[in-house]
Amino acid sequence: MKKGWFITIEGPEGAGKTSIMNKLAEGLRKEGLAVTATREPGGIAIAEQIREVILNKENTTMDGRTEALLYAAARRQHLVEKIKPAIERGEVVLCDRFIDSSLSYQGHARGLGMEDVYEINQFAIDEFMPDLTLLFDIRPEVGLARIQAHRSGEINRLDLEGLAFHEKVREGYLHLLGKFPSRIKRIDAEADMEQVYEDSLKLIMERVTGSVR
Amino acid sequence: MKKGWFITIEGPEGAGKTSIMNKLAEGLRKEGLAVTATREPGGIAIAEQIREVILNKENTTMDGRTEALLYAAARRQHLVEKIKPAIERGEVVLCDRFIDSSLSYQGHARGLGMEDVYEINQFAIDEFMPDLTLLFDIRPEVGLARIQAHRSGEINRLDLEGLAFHEKVREGYLHLLGKFPSRIKRIDAEADMEQVYEDSLKLIMERVTGSVR
Repeated sequence: MKKGWFITIEGPEGAGKTSIMNKLAEGLRKEGLAVTATREPGGIAIAEQIREVILNKENTTMDGRTEALLYAAARRQHLVEKIKPAIERGEVVLCDRFIDSSLSYQGHARGLGMEDVYEINQFAIDEFMPDLTLLFDIRPEVGLARIQAHRSGEINRLDLEGLAFHEKVREGYLHLLGKFPSRIKRIDAEADMEQVYEDSLKLIMERVTGSVR
Repeated sequence: MKKGWFITIEGPEGAGKTSIMNKLAEGLRKEGLAVTATREPGGIAIAEQIREVILNKENTTMDGRTEALLYAAARRQHLVEKIKPAIERGEVVLCDRFIDSSLSYQGHARGLGMEDVYEINQFAIDEFMPDLTLLFDIRPEVGLARIQAHRSGEINRLDLEGLAFHEKVREGYLHLLGKFPSRIKRIDAEADMEQVYEDSLKLIMERVTGSVR
């Protein structure tokens, strides 16, 4: 029986997901809520082992579909071992990336097809979709510039191909926003951090206090 | 472009798949055909790594859906790296177990649902279905007795639960036989080995010589 809330945070690198998620966990705890903040593979042994296969630099022949199936497998185990138990305890689970990352990155930007990637992820998730997804939307050039700034101005090989790929990722995310308007809410991630935090907290609190369990 | 033939051999343990497959490879070579005989993970590094995660005895919390996704991932990589190239070279590929094993064991006997397991395997296979599947059909009690005999009469814990599971596996296979009658052909695996071999070779040769590529 579901008692808590499952909130995912999506968006590209450089959108500030990690910093804001940590701040949101604190903010929600101050509101008296129990919070689990996580991201795949989330310290789950089996999911970590799967992640090692994905990230192993010697696996240069890894097919795109193999990779998508491995991400779905790791997602399943993280969901079963960490997310579901926390939600059953009545907690708010904040998860940095979930199904929408696979749809946007692998389905759309890598060209495997959003519908097909959705199918294998539905098998992994088995109806356990997020109650709310915050999409941290930011133009790729702004996100990439932020990442470069964090690296103290170090020149990086973010060439045009990289930018085109990130445009596709954003296109994928915005497509999902249009398709699932009640689940996914856009956050303007180009705003200053305090604003992004306030907008996010407001949406989460509306969902948590507005729903009867 | 597909030039060779993709033949899978299915059935429970004790049906004699491995012995007959090796004999078939020899027999087909004598007919002048180039043959690759394989089984998952087939020595493919990435598939072997995935297999290690599946078989790791410490992974006692592995969820059934995680496992099914991992099998599909290993299948994908074995298909891309080994089966497809051999078929493109014009060879006959004999593969011990493929999609129908997942459908019968995980989909039906383990209760994940054949339709759902079919979906993730279709993602893995991407239309690359076998040209012919030989189903080595044998009653579970006969198959299990053969396995015990191979172990020199050693008493084994093949209890009633084990037998019920193998009944379900057979039920799954026979359901598939009814559903895909042009692809899947039943072989009476309770017959003597020479007969099983002859029946199998005949069906393969019919498919190979009867199809124009």
